[in-house]
Amino acid sequence: MFDTFVGKNLIAIVNAGSATLKFSLLDTVETPLRALVERLGESDGEEPRAVIKDALGNTVFDGPIPSRNHGEALAWLFDWIAQECPKLRPVAVGHRVVHGGDSLQKPILVTPEVIGQIESLISLAPLHQPHNLSPIQFIARKFPKLPQVACFDTAFHANQSKIERMFALPRSWSEKGIKRYGFHGLSYEYIALHLPEIDEQAATGRTIVCHLGNGASLCGLHAGRSVATTMAFTALEGLPMGTRSGSIDPGVLLHLLDQEKMTVGELSNLLYKQSGLLGISGISSDMRDLLSDPSAEAAEAVEYFCYRIARAIGSLAAALGGLDALVFTGGIGEHAASVRARICELSQWLGIAIDSVANAENRIVLHTADSPIKVLVIPTNEERMIAKHVGQVLGMT
Amino acid sequence: MFDTFVGKNLIAIVNAGSATLKFSLLDTVETPLRALVERLGESDGEEPRAVIKDALGNTVFDGPIPSRNHGEALAWLFDWIAQECPKLRPVAVGHRVVHGGDSLQKPILVTPEVIGQIESLISLAPLHQPHNLSPIQFIARKFPKLPQVACFDTAFHANQSKIERMFALPRSWSEKGIKRYGFHGLSYEYIALHLPEIDEQAATGRTIVCHLGNGASLCGLHAGRSVATTMAFTALEGLPMGTRSGSIDPGVLLHLLDQEKMTVGELSNLLYKQSGLLGISGISSDMRDLLSDPSAEAAEAVEYFCYRIARAIGSLAAALGGLDALVFTGGIGEHAASVRARICELSQWLGIAIDSVANAENRIVLHTADSPIKVLVIPTNEERMIAKHVGQVLGMT
Repeated sequence: MFDTFVGKNLIAIVNAGSATLKFSLLDTVETPLRALVERLGESDGEEPRAVIKDALGNTVFDGPIPSRNHGEALAWLFDWIAQECPKLRPVAVGHRVVHGGDSLQKPILVTPEVIGQIESLISLAPLHQPHNLSPIQFIARKFPKLPQVACFDTAFHANQSKIERMFALPRSWSEKGIKRYGFHGLSYEYIALHLPEIDEQAATGRTIVCHLGNGASLCGLHAGRSVATTMAFTALEGLPMGTRSGSIDPGVLLHLLDQEKMTVGELSNLLYKQSGLLGISGISSDMRDLLSDPSAEAAEAVEYFCYRIARAIGSLAAALGGLDALVFTGGIGEHAASVRARICELSQWLGIAIDSVANAENRIVLHTADSPIKVLVIPTNEERMIAKHVGQVLGMT
Repeated sequence: MFDTFVGKNLIAIVNAGSATLKFSLLDTVETPLRALVERLGESDGEEPRAVIKDALGNTVFDGPIPSRNHGEALAWLFDWIAQECPKLRPVAVGHRVVHGGDSLQKPILVTPEVIGQIESLISLAPLHQPHNLSPIQFIARKFPKLPQVACFDTAFHANQSKIERMFALPRSWSEKGIKRYGFHGLSYEYIALHLPEIDEQAATGRTIVCHLGNGASLCGLHAGRSVATTMAFTALEGLPMGTRSGSIDPGVLLHLLDQEKMTVGELSNLLYKQSGLLGISGISSDMRDLLSDPSAEAAEAVEYFCYRIARAIGSLAAALGGLDALVFTGGIGEHAASVRARICELSQWLGIAIDSVANAENRIVLHTADSPIKVLVIPTNEERMIAKHVGQVLGMT
């Protein structure tokens, strides 16, 4: 089943989330193999589970695997590939790394020094950075000749203005790195790269991209460059998400610690794992579940999500000094027509007008002919963006 | 000097801040006596200091006083008045109380039950509510026949929509009172009450009021009713302020606790006392100092303040579904022309255009003749608003 890809320049893409590992092998056109490992490091006692699919999307493996962490999961995948389809050998690996800090502002070839730099940023993203690092370390150890490129989710935002990236904290804290970095950078970069093919006004003007998935953020682009984004020092800030609170009064955290005697661990768990759509609805963190649920609680969670996005669109329009285009992407942004419709309805005051049929059909162009603001749906592809960076860093293209 | 006010229906207004007590005696037109006590409960060893002024603004007392808390400071003031101007006797007292929670949503005559209700809300505002309570308790004990009216800073926002007031937390926390209340309500109510005399478009339409002082917030009004505001569960949220951070990524708090091993007390002190304009500038929490300071740090603090206000104006315009008027009030809003100018410049995209001469002269009307959005400067007066409530609750008017 994998024979047609033998001999091609396959790149392995590794995208480690907090409990997941997404892996794919791709060439410039197709994706001969794709794997998802879930439940890594979960404390519920259940083993991690891997699903592997071929180029046509057929499942070729689905079962528990013995890995305890992201590095071991990648090792298991490499073993599985060596056994089941030994001719599928990647010529390079690209990693999505959540945090590049101030020092790593573009994709870079992994060396021992770079690994040290990535390690030094663990304290800025303790829940994610170690999971990005362990697959890199596994490959460096096991396949030292396989070139690896690290691509940082913060890098696309690195040229935002100093004022934009500041918090109103004493300068000593900013100097220690407590500032707004922003995330989802590879997704926004992919969109920015493809905007010129789709709409000139969106490509050259002031565009807000809504990356709405289980994690969600908005980014304000001016001529394709990041001006401001809703995530900040961490991926907890900004929009409400599947299980994350998004922006919340810092006084609430102080109250829960001081008056309710929560521990920092409990508070972190509350804000990262029990809040957002799941917290409001009490039902699910998955927008699909909420949209098909008839309860008032599910409807409130969806409405809160749309309302906060509309508020953030107003705020980002202020950062951009106006708005020329709105782009939806990510699982919810690409597929949830009713969510897009509600966000656009709440944003009518900006001049946004969409065609309800185009929206219901998930078309690329949603705006009406007389809407001064373009509204587009563009599927994002962080894997392809990483592969492109790998090619550029290694001079493969 | 106080004789002309003898026999008039004087109302005492008590406005307790975290370390200050503002007190005044006023009738429907004038303010025969005004006092400010500062440095209450400060740990720096310096005694509190009172300044008392007569109707003409002449200082009639200026010196340290032996009070340790807000109740004792009020007792000292009552003693001083009894001795120095015994004929100035208030017929009622109005108190600004920071938090009314869900139960106290309008001004109310103080009874033992009401005192119990105010006490029960201490955990929602532990830094302020006790200071509001001790003067109320002092008067209830010492002058049991003097009627007192409690006016809540949260009350004006009580009718905001449920979605607006939610956080994306599990419902059990919202039910325990962890939601957006909003503050500066007496100031916004005063402005809303006077808008019809000043501008019909602002009174009936969608208006954002910028209350900019040492504490700062914005409120979106529709036809004079509060739709949304930047402060939330506490007065720490929203805009950067003199020493408060305003909105900040919750992940920053988790990081400072977990990685930097800050205690909750240290974190609270950082965010309430060392951040905001003071934190960014390293110079002063006072906008006047920053505007007259030539350093880049002072300029950055001012720019950050204006930029975050412009972002919040965009966000509130989304809540209102558009914008008809912008109102500046509070010490900075009423007097800092360059701050207003910069905020309006950053908000030009909404259609705002102001007359630079009118702005420089702190006139009431700043917008140009062809600006679709009205821009006004309206001095706020929380004392008068409280006095009005006292009169209404007691049937004095």
